Amino acid sequence: MDTISFARGVPAPECLPIEDLADCARTAIERDGASTLLYGHTLGYQPLREWIAERHGVDPARVIVTNGSLQAFHFVFLALGDGRRVIVERPTYDRPRKILSGFGEVSVDDDGLDLDELERVLAGGSQPAFLYTIPTFQNPTGVTLSEERRRRLAELATVRSLRVLEDDPYGLVRFEGEPLPTLFELEGGTNVIYSSSFSKTIAPGLRVGYVLVPEEVAAGLEDIVASTYITPALVGQATVLEFLRRGLLAPNLERVRGLLGARRDAMLEALERDLAGRARWSQPEGGYFLWLELPDGTDATELLGRASAAGVTFVPGPDFGGVPNSARLAFSFASPAEIDEGVSRLAALVPAAAAV
Amino acid sequence: MDTISFARGVPAPECLPIEDLADCARTAIERDGASTLLYGHTLGYQPLREWIAERHGVDPARVIVTNGSLQAFHFVFLALGDGRRVIVERPTYDRPRKILSGFGEVSVDDDGLDLDELERVLAGGSQPAFLYTIPTFQNPTGVTLSEERRRRLAELATVRSLRVLEDDPYGLVRFEGEPLPTLFELEGGTNVIYSSSFSKTIAPGLRVGYVLVPEEVAAGLEDIVASTYITPALVGQATVLEFLRRGLLAPNLERVRGLLGARRDAMLEALERDLAGRARWSQPEGGYFLWLELPDGTDATELLGRASAAGVTFVPGPDFGGVPNSARLAFSFASPAEIDEGVSRLAALVPAAAAV
Repeated sequence: MDTISFARGVPAPECLPIEDLADCARTAIERDGASTLLYGHTLGYQPLREWIAERHGVDPARVIVTNGSLQAFHFVFLALGDGRRVIVERPTYDRPRKILSGFGEVSVDDDGLDLDELERVLAGGSQPAFLYTIPTFQNPTGVTLSEERRRRLAELATVRSLRVLEDDPYGLVRFEGEPLPTLFELEGGTNVIYSSSFSKTIAPGLRVGYVLVPEEVAAGLEDIVASTYITPALVGQATVLEFLRRGLLAPNLERVRGLLGARRDAMLEALERDLAGRARWSQPEGGYFLWLELPDGTDATELLGRASAAGVTFVPGPDFGGVPNSARLAFSFASPAEIDEGVSRLAALVPAAAAV
Repeated sequence: MDTISFARGVPAPECLPIEDLADCARTAIERDGASTLLYGHTLGYQPLREWIAERHGVDPARVIVTNGSLQAFHFVFLALGDGRRVIVERPTYDRPRKILSGFGEVSVDDDGLDLDELERVLAGGSQPAFLYTIPTFQNPTGVTLSEERRRRLAELATVRSLRVLEDDPYGLVRFEGEPLPTLFELEGGTNVIYSSSFSKTIAPGLRVGYVLVPEEVAAGLEDIVASTYITPALVGQATVLEFLRRGLLAPNLERVRGLLGARRDAMLEALERDLAGRARWSQPEGGYFLWLELPDGTDATELLGRASAAGVTFVPGPDFGGVPNSARLAFSFASPAEIDEGVSRLAALVPAAAAV
């Protein structure tokens, strides 16, 4: 019996446009090898910076293209951290939690970050270096910050000169509902730094992430970037640009949304069938993940041990700062049939409900 | 009048095997897209790790493939630095100098690192985290550590349990003379960590560097790497592997050695013609750089201002920790004719000799 993974936050291999990317890489190197194969601009492949700048309506000098957006998080933290506290969501993406040695936390509910709690946290201490938030299809919960809260947070950022790092890797992977404005769009990019990548829209192995920063931050980042890796990996960046220029992003997104939307549907249906009344889960409109709250008293970390033995895996909520009875289920990787079977296996291990 | 750059430590575009790499990238993605386009192994593309392991006669678990070898330097420093001092060569590659907040220095002469001075420095303080050395065609001087000193340094590493980070990006770019054993080979890799890359042998823009570390260090590095960028850029790594598997490295090296050797010859001839008796310079048998010592009292940083105005650039020695009247001249980038002209322009600005 093969193990079914709800742990891996990676796309199913069917999502990858392998043939197109192979041809784009060949073209990108042939056409501009003298740029992509030498050391290029520290802040990224210039024509891709320009494409991103145009898409977001900013000056190219504000665009920094990195080897994946986690590396961008590092750079922003190095540039702005300055020994001050960073505020993160609880729960949040586990890798930034590991990078930050200490941080403050603010809860997430079904509408995203709890802004009342944020205001209390801000009032109760010194100005933080920045707030790190994933407003859309959050990792790990799959929830999305409501439009009302987005407007309020953008306002708060302006009024309090609060730097916000808006991480938005999943925003374009929407299966239903209308796209919401980003914090960056609402606030204008004075205090909000916007981070995204092509990992979820094209392919993660290309390692092409980017960040939009105020110009004065970009200048400071250039030294940090140069001292880290001289120049990012340009072949992947040029391959992405070729993919974009050929107009392949929109049809690829359509395809990816279809593939992943079907997986989300399969997971929601199986959960309803097998765990209704015993657990709660989020209802993501896009992205890779949903958040499962198991009956009170369940220890998700202990459950994982038994689940692995039964052929299904997930990531326990505490890895993200969540409560002991929570878990992140990724629906991005397994097939709909595997998801159906995996939820069955998992549900068989979950105790009958206390009050959920 | 176009500026002639002796500043850029990059290969001439003619060195780049653009067509071959374009085809290798296409093949690499087509054949193994499901690996290279997803998140792969944190420590690098597994088949390339195996190729490097076989070449160096080590277990693949000891090979870490990174986004260029400067990123590997960061990882080693994070893993071993531990607040202790690092010892570097004087002069040495400027980027590590910037990464290290504080360091001890040991002189380099025509035979490389001064081992008597190293022994005095070691005796005069606590055990350093490691010694960072570029024994072959050193950046910035172009000098090579003699075989006698290599054996003595390897012995010293063993006897004193002194960790040595041997950075060897240029070793294969040898124009003449017999290759010398690496410190890693002489010492066996217990205390010596070996770092190299494909930047000088294939193309720098691919950003594929690697480091060979003891197994216990590799285990510690995995967490650091995962928290930095999840996984390195795999398309470049798979492209390098395809290039290697097709047997293209050896003929490419032949070509690169011919192109760069002619540039070195042009620079040595022009220096002899225009600066004999007024300056001294190193006689590199390979690599990208030579080291120029100008007449006493010359300020290379001030000279650079005038040189730029006259259409030739270089990097002043103090950027590498060198004396004020020293300069690094890169012969890797400009053509032989440009080198000839550039040395003329430079020599016209150098004062008549005092005693050199």
